[in-house]
Amino acid sequence: MTTHRASWLNGRVQRGEEELFSAFDPALLLGDGLFESLAVSLEAMPGLELHESRLRWAAARMHFVLEDGPNWGAVITQLLELAELEAGRARISLLGPAERPRLLFTVQELPEDLEEKRREGIRLWVSSFRMSPNDPVAGLKCLSRSFQLAAEREARGHGADDALLLGQHGELRECTRWNVFAQNPDDSLVTPTLTGAFLPGITRARLLALLPGLGLSCRERTLNFDELRPEMALFLSNAVYGLVPVRELNGEELTRPRGLDRLLQGLLS
Amino acid sequence: MTTHRASWLNGRVQRGEEELFSAFDPALLLGDGLFESLAVSLEAMPGLELHESRLRWAAARMHFVLEDGPNWGAVITQLLELAELEAGRARISLLGPAERPRLLFTVQELPEDLEEKRREGIRLWVSSFRMSPNDPVAGLKCLSRSFQLAAEREARGHGADDALLLGQHGELRECTRWNVFAQNPDDSLVTPTLTGAFLPGITRARLLALLPGLGLSCRERTLNFDELRPEMALFLSNAVYGLVPVRELNGEELTRPRGLDRLLQGLLS
Repeated sequence: MTTHRASWLNGRVQRGEEELFSAFDPALLLGDGLFESLAVSLEAMPGLELHESRLRWAAARMHFVLEDGPNWGAVITQLLELAELEAGRARISLLGPAERPRLLFTVQELPEDLEEKRREGIRLWVSSFRMSPNDPVAGLKCLSRSFQLAAEREARGHGADDALLLGQHGELRECTRWNVFAQNPDDSLVTPTLTGAFLPGITRARLLALLPGLGLSCRERTLNFDELRPEMALFLSNAVYGLVPVRELNGEELTRPRGLDRLLQGLLS
Repeated sequence: MTTHRASWLNGRVQRGEEELFSAFDPALLLGDGLFESLAVSLEAMPGLELHESRLRWAAARMHFVLEDGPNWGAVITQLLELAELEAGRARISLLGPAERPRLLFTVQELPEDLEEKRREGIRLWVSSFRMSPNDPVAGLKCLSRSFQLAAEREARGHGADDALLLGQHGELRECTRWNVFAQNPDDSLVTPTLTGAFLPGITRARLLALLPGLGLSCRERTLNFDELRPEMALFLSNAVYGLVPVRELNGEELTRPRGLDRLLQGLLS
C-alpha cells in the first residue's frame, strides 16, 4: 500500500508517516505552535508567499524566534514528488519551543470530500460559544484548536458539518476553518471586517483582490447575525477547499450562491 | 546518561523519550486532547482519584469516548520504577481523535525549581488578556494552551514568572497553571468562586476540604482585582508544586502569606 504522504522536519525528509515526536515534545504537550495549510500542485501554489508572510506575522505575535527558512516552494515540490502526488494539501508548521522552533512541512492527498463540498455545500450551525473580543490567539492559526473542536462537535451534534462563530454581540466572525461571505440578491458581496478577533484568511484576501477585475464588489463591514435575510446566500472560503456554498443554516435550507464557480476559477487560475 | 523518564501509551511501556507520534497525529495537529498533571511518589499519590474523575468529566464535555482504563496508581508505580524515581511528576493525557482516544501516561523528575518556588515565591503580572465568559474549554486542562502561553510570554516580557488572568469585568480567575488564594490580615482566606470559566483545581479542592480541620476558613466568592489591598497576601496552588507564595504583583512586592508551610504539610500528609 502506498502512502501519499511526506514530511520535512528541520531538513530531514521522509516519505510516509514515521514517528517523529516524543511524548515529552512541547508542541504536543501544550499545542505550542503555528501553522499554515493550503492546496498545492506541481503546476502552481497560489498564495504561497501570503501564507509565508502570515506565518511570520503570527510567529512575531507569539514571540517565536524565526530564522530564515528554506524556499517553501522548493520544499513542497520535493515532498509532492516524494509522495507521488500531482496535487495535494501542504501544511507548514512552526513548532515550539518558541526560543528554538522547528519548521515542519507535510504534504498529503487533497481532502476526499473536496469536490463534493464545492458542489453540495456545507451545513452550518450557529455555535452557542461566542468568540472573545480579547483573545491573543483568536486571529492566529495555532496548534491549539480546542475551542474550534468544541464548536465543531457541538455543530455535528445538531447534524451540521461546521459551526458559525459569532462575537459577543452577535457579529458574524468565521467558521472553524473558513471565512464567511454573504451574497445579496443583486450579487454584491459582504464579508465581516477584520477586527483582529478572527483569522485574516489568505483566500479571503485573494478573493477581495480578484473581485474588481470581475466587475464585482464586496463590502467589508460588521455584519450581525440578525441582519441575515432569507434572500441572502452564504459561502465560505479557505485555502485548501477554495470556495464552498453554505446549503443549510441551523437546519434551514439557504438560497444557493450565484457565480461561485467563476469566482473559484479566478482563484485557481 | 540516565533519563528518568518513562511512558505508557495504550499499554505500550517504555523508558526514555522514544519518538511515538507522527507529524500527522491529530493530537499534534489540533491540540486535540486533555490531561492531568500531578506530583506522585512510590509512597503516596494524593488526589489521584480526583484527577481521574476530573479527566472523565472533561472527556465527557469534549465528547471523548472513554473506555475503562487501567488502574492509574499501578501504571504510575510501574513508570516510577522504570524511570528509577522515588518521586516525580506524572501526566495522564487523553489524546484525540475523540471517537478513538489514546491514553498516555508519562513520568519524569519533579520540576527543578520546585523547592525554590515554594521558598521564594512567584512574580505575577496582570495579563492584558481577559478570559472569556463563554469559552467551552476555559475550565478544562486541554492540549490547547496557546492562550496561556501568550499570557505567560507577556508576563515574562515584564520580568514576571506568570500571568494573573482576570475575567471581562476584572474578576480574579486563575494563573496559567495555578489557582489563586488571597489571605486577609486575620489569616482568613478568600478564593474565586468556580464559575466554569476557569480550572476547578484539585489542589484547590483538597485545600478547601483540609482547612476546617486546621481551624481555618476560606470564603469562595467573586473577588475583583481592585479589591486587592496591600495588606493582603496571595498564594497559588497546583498539583505539582503544591502551594507557593506570590512575592510580587506587577513589580510591587507583596506581604508574605503566613502559615503556608503548615497548609502544604497538610496537603502532603
